[in-house]
Amino acid sequence: MTDFTDNLKPRYDGAAILEAERSASVLGIDELSKHLLSRDDFLGRQEKVLKVLRKEKLFNKDQQLNLSRPERYHLGLARAKAIRRLVRREAWDHEDYKMAEYLNDEMSPFHLHMTMFVTTIREQGSPAQNKSWMPRILDYDIIGCYAQSELGHGSNVKGLETEARWDPVAQEFEIHSPHLTASKWWNGGMGRTATHAIVVAQLLLPKSSTAQPSTTDSENPSRSHTTSEYVPYGPQTFIVQIRDKKSHQPMQGIAVGDIGPKYGYASMDNGYMLFDRVRVPKSAMLSRYAEVSDETGALIRRGHPAVVYGSLTFVRGQIIMHARHVTPFSDMNWLVLARAVTVAVRYCAVRRQFQDRDGVAPTHSRPQDEVQVLDYPTVQIRILPLLAATFALHYTGEYMYNLYHQSRRTIEEGDFGPLAALHSASSGLKSLCTTIAADGIETCRRAMGGHGFGGGSGLVGLNADYLSKPTVEGDNWMITQQVAAYLIKKTTECVQNVASATQDPTEELLKDYLRGRAQHTPPSFLAADGSIDDDALVQIFRWRAAALAYAAYQARVEEKKPWTSLMIQLHNLSHAYSYHILVSTFRTALSSSSVTSLSNPTPSVLRTCFRLFALHTLSQSASSFLLTSSISASDLQVLDAKILEVMGELRPHAVKLVDAWAVPDWLLDSALGRYDGKVYEDLFERAHRKNPLNRTTFNVDWRSEEVVLGSGDGGRQLLAKL
Amino acid sequence: MTDFTDNLKPRYDGAAILEAERSASVLGIDELSKHLLSRDDFLGRQEKVLKVLRKEKLFNKDQQLNLSRPERYHLGLARAKAIRRLVRREAWDHEDYKMAEYLNDEMSPFHLHMTMFVTTIREQGSPAQNKSWMPRILDYDIIGCYAQSELGHGSNVKGLETEARWDPVAQEFEIHSPHLTASKWWNGGMGRTATHAIVVAQLLLPKSSTAQPSTTDSENPSRSHTTSEYVPYGPQTFIVQIRDKKSHQPMQGIAVGDIGPKYGYASMDNGYMLFDRVRVPKSAMLSRYAEVSDETGALIRRGHPAVVYGSLTFVRGQIIMHARHVTPFSDMNWLVLARAVTVAVRYCAVRRQFQDRDGVAPTHSRPQDEVQVLDYPTVQIRILPLLAATFALHYTGEYMYNLYHQSRRTIEEGDFGPLAALHSASSGLKSLCTTIAADGIETCRRAMGGHGFGGGSGLVGLNADYLSKPTVEGDNWMITQQVAAYLIKKTTECVQNVASATQDPTEELLKDYLRGRAQHTPPSFLAADGSIDDDALVQIFRWRAAALAYAAYQARVEEKKPWTSLMIQLHNLSHAYSYHILVSTFRTALSSSSVTSLSNPTPSVLRTCFRLFALHTLSQSASSFLLTSSISASDLQVLDAKILEVMGELRPHAVKLVDAWAVPDWLLDSALGRYDGKVYEDLFERAHRKNPLNRTTFNVDWRSEEVVLGSGDGGRQLLAKL
Repeated sequence: MTDFTDNLKPRYDGAAILEAERSASVLGIDELSKHLLSRDDFLGRQEKVLKVLRKEKLFNKDQQLNLSRPERYHLGLARAKAIRRLVRREAWDHEDYKMAEYLNDEMSPFHLHMTMFVTTIREQGSPAQNKSWMPRILDYDIIGCYAQSELGHGSNVKGLETEARWDPVAQEFEIHSPHLTASKWWNGGMGRTATHAIVVAQLLLPKSSTAQPSTTDSENPSRSHTTSEYVPYGPQTFIVQIRDKKSHQPMQGIAVGDIGPKYGYASMDNGYMLFDRVRVPKSAMLSRYAEVSDETGALIRRGHPAVVYGSLTFVRGQIIMHARHVTPFSDMNWLVLARAVTVAVRYCAVRRQFQDRDGVAPTHSRPQDEVQVLDYPTVQIRILPLLAATFALHYTGEYMYNLYHQSRRTIEEGDFGPLAALHSASSGLKSLCTTIAADGIETCRRAMGGHGFGGGSGLVGLNADYLSKPTVEGDNWMITQQVAAYLIKKTTECVQNVASATQDPTEELLKDYLRGRAQHTPPSFLAADGSIDDDALVQIFRWRAAALAYAAYQARVEEKKPWTSLMIQLHNLSHAYSYHILVSTFRTALSSSSVTSLSNPTPSVLRTCFRLFALHTLSQSASSFLLTSSISASDLQVLDAKILEVMGELRPHAVKLVDAWAVPDWLLDSALGRYDGKVYEDLFERAHRKNPLNRTTFNVDWRSEEVVLGSGDGGRQLLAKL
Repeated sequence: MTDFTDNLKPRYDGAAILEAERSASVLGIDELSKHLLSRDDFLGRQEKVLKVLRKEKLFNKDQQLNLSRPERYHLGLARAKAIRRLVRREAWDHEDYKMAEYLNDEMSPFHLHMTMFVTTIREQGSPAQNKSWMPRILDYDIIGCYAQSELGHGSNVKGLETEARWDPVAQEFEIHSPHLTASKWWNGGMGRTATHAIVVAQLLLPKSSTAQPSTTDSENPSRSHTTSEYVPYGPQTFIVQIRDKKSHQPMQGIAVGDIGPKYGYASMDNGYMLFDRVRVPKSAMLSRYAEVSDETGALIRRGHPAVVYGSLTFVRGQIIMHARHVTPFSDMNWLVLARAVTVAVRYCAVRRQFQDRDGVAPTHSRPQDEVQVLDYPTVQIRILPLLAATFALHYTGEYMYNLYHQSRRTIEEGDFGPLAALHSASSGLKSLCTTIAADGIETCRRAMGGHGFGGGSGLVGLNADYLSKPTVEGDNWMITQQVAAYLIKKTTECVQNVASATQDPTEELLKDYLRGRAQHTPPSFLAADGSIDDDALVQIFRWRAAALAYAAYQARVEEKKPWTSLMIQLHNLSHAYSYHILVSTFRTALSSSSVTSLSNPTPSVLRTCFRLFALHTLSQSASSFLLTSSISASDLQVLDAKILEVMGELRPHAVKLVDAWAVPDWLLDSALGRYDGKVYEDLFERAHRKNPLNRTTFNVDWRSEEVVLGSGDGGRQLLAKL
């Protein structure tokens, strides 16, 4: 179809604008990309997998926003299956497979099968259970999911209501849902896909059994499922077949289905499941660490006590879950944020609106041109600190990745020492970093004005999907309590032992504070020559974190205030502590040889990012820095002016800095964020050529019930769907 | 269909919990509802219209989230037509009709027809044009839209690219789109619905014409559409038929369609439109204020100069648009926010999670019960300040409504004096209040944890739709510049004339500051007896607004800094000024007889809301208050503790306070926010009975391309849609 619109060009040529932006900065982008994304050959793998996917029509993203939610699941399942076939056809390894999921960019109905389902069996199943299940799992002959959360309980695992009652005569467990709120809920892949589930249920043994109840449950003696004849032993994991292999219908006594539409995750079948006294064999209970004795019917626990009583498994599970959000495992929050920032920076460079009020000609422009909106400080203050944040999150991710792998080696040698610190850092960073990214996506969207609200932004799905992150796998407001508890414990130890030296960075932070607080004056982030003192910035963040930890210690340990009354303060402490990690780690990275060896001006541009991130954070939480005497009043007075100055330094490199994140256009799926700057051409193409709604003609006469012109069914098709 | 799930009950009875909440507070809810919602008999009208709508299957909201975007437009059009039929059948007046739109809760494809389309013709059309068009419009024989924004220009009306070139020989205008970016874009109802459009285009007259070019355009001499033979006269409005009445196909030379899916507004056909030298008669130009002369071919302007040169019309238009967001016209931001807060308060009261860490029994609970999450300060700090904000926004809305009607009378008598103040207040409040509401909806959602991400929250559509508000009808970051410009002008006047008395509240604010600043010490919001001093709170907000206005005056007028470099500062000034209006107006309302005459404890509970709103705002922007010496350092130290205290006072009334907003369950469409507290029953019903995805059985075997079990089409149906 051709028409008169074919010959029209936009008034300003976006391609020329981005070209000018790119040639005005001498940053070496290939080198910077490699520096940022070399782990596991990310860039090479991205290119290789992208080449395959973009040839497959099924992975075309054009019509995704026009599909209904049931269709989105259909498509999600079709793609999940197709990726399995591609894995075989292309001989992809596991990293390639993960890259395909990343580029496909939607939650796969198979996602839990190859993550929580397989991991739980591997870690908690006995050797015999592993031998029996693994081949079927790895061949996808069965599809698994992980059924922990319930309608009534998400965060509180001890509160789970599903019961697994041991019948010593039949040698079976009876899985049962005593209340409606016992329904499993939210579990990914369970709604329509899975044939099997790991079911987390409260183990109940008949009273005659001789083992002691678990310590965790003795704190909780009046659970409703405790009948006089049974004793609760806390949550255990069971592998249960939930659907018939052939008919794919639910097994007898099981009600299971999809919970319905959500904010995002349209392609994923998050499920519900209730059990009506479902019998499973003894072998269903994963028994690496605990098993019901054949002889006595008692619970036999084996292994290290920390493992046996579940707390270690729980903490390790949490660390792995949180690490996913803050390290280069799978959900790299900085790459997610980088997508939003890429779109915003490119579009705001191409977009021009209004001439300068004082008649000053804009950069790279003819005098009559309107101003690039990226040149407005009101746009910069929203986007550029987030651009800086992508690097802050990245360097901390790399740091945590290394910490995780070091600690894992130590732990596997039987030393559980590093666990608490790792748990605290990963929980705090999960909370802070997913909040920064989730809020950042929406901030970028709004900074793009009207077109930011359109589907051509490419952020509709990203935004909706990512909004789950601040809640899932540890609510961002809840898990900070664990960080604060750790810091209060550490402070208590340090207070009792201020003088002695330490290797632990958190103890060092706290002791520096305890030793220095009597005669403290806040350092200035301005050096004598007016330049920014990067180390002083780090000191300011360290001091705030330590001062808030000490205040929490005083309130809780010395003044014995109720925990609940301190919760907001503890949340703020956790964020302050996590911000200190982000700032310190970024500062350290700047001095590392991997940064200093980059060609000019990359190291100094990264330094500008560091400064903007730190100064902007200072400004956002200024009163918290002031109240802890971390920053001086005179520094605060010049803060906003310094931020403007630093943004001015970063601005010329903005387009190239987002280029460095190497997000392919195919993944961005954004008219506004196209690499080539053809924003308006693409927006128009989507509307004029690709919008299915424009293929229907409607009847707008209100006297008729018919909606489509000439359909003659009086809207009956539509009514039937309601 | 019955099954074993029918007999299951939730572990905690939500209905009993909300009942206990309601009986624990003695607030008189009916009285408070009437106090809040008496204008135009809101409550009676709501009941009347709701009764009709809920009987019509077409308005059932059950399946909305399961429809595709094209289906959502189909449904939106069917509903828009049905509402017209109901208006006739039920003899509804215009207020009833608006109530039906409010309860239907989606943007109607007819929305622009009865707002911008009809208003523009009424205000800018000549008597003859009105006579000719109005009957057809009011009968909906033609459906209109308003085509101002373009692909390349939204905020900047002067930058619009569509041209209307006068042909003196044919006595016709030629409407033409010279670039792709001239495409009309975003215009509601234009995509598939409208037959006619008001087209805003740059008027071009042949050079021989004798009238002077408009002053606005002389600032902008090199517009691309200025050819040597034509002179630009700035934007004018034209009424253009865009679709054939019978076939509903675009008229010759017009490319028009829907722009495709967006964040929200699925039911609305936001459109694009390009013109290929389309000829329209002379009568197409709306000619109340300007007309091309039959004799000379020159532009004749008539009426008051402010009207003639468009600025007045523009400003008035802006005021009306902004007032919609901040007064009881149509989009009452406090009722939108109240919906989110209603859902969050009720659900967080019903939801219990974790036992208290110190073993303290929760309120209204048995010792073994888990804590209601609304009792956690980390939940309160997110929801209760927003509950308080609904009242702040409401009282300011009422104040602005009265101010608007007073000023309108004055203006209609020919005195344009009040216009600037009204424009400034409504722009500033539009920016601040829609930001508070948009962010507030998401904050409420996140405060609800996992279930907040589900469709049962009832916030999916509300959130997506409302996210447009910070951008549309004046971007929230852009329109604040106008507020700041007004305040700088006012400050300049006041500085030159500090001593004289004034009746103008903004001048009073500024003069109080100018007189007092030499020997100012910030007042304490704590009275001598430790209670909160409400008037001191107002003073603190007044002082900050004035101090920032003065600082902006110094920077711009005295130091002559470039406007662009000040933009962030000016944005902050606008918000500080608007916050002062919210706080002052709320404080004044508390002393009004309409509040003091309410039965106890309502006046004091509203006072608690005022305090929470003010203190929480102080805490959120503490450094801005500190840097302007509006608040003392010692007050800042106790601020967080005071907020906790005030939240504790408000907590027992929270459920009843949201009840007072009287949002019907039918409108909320939320399992979590049901009036009766049956949260879990409703969530389960939606999943188990109402989810269409659960009626399909899928083929999960990855070796097969088929998606639906036994469909046998190898996913071809699905592929065809991609």
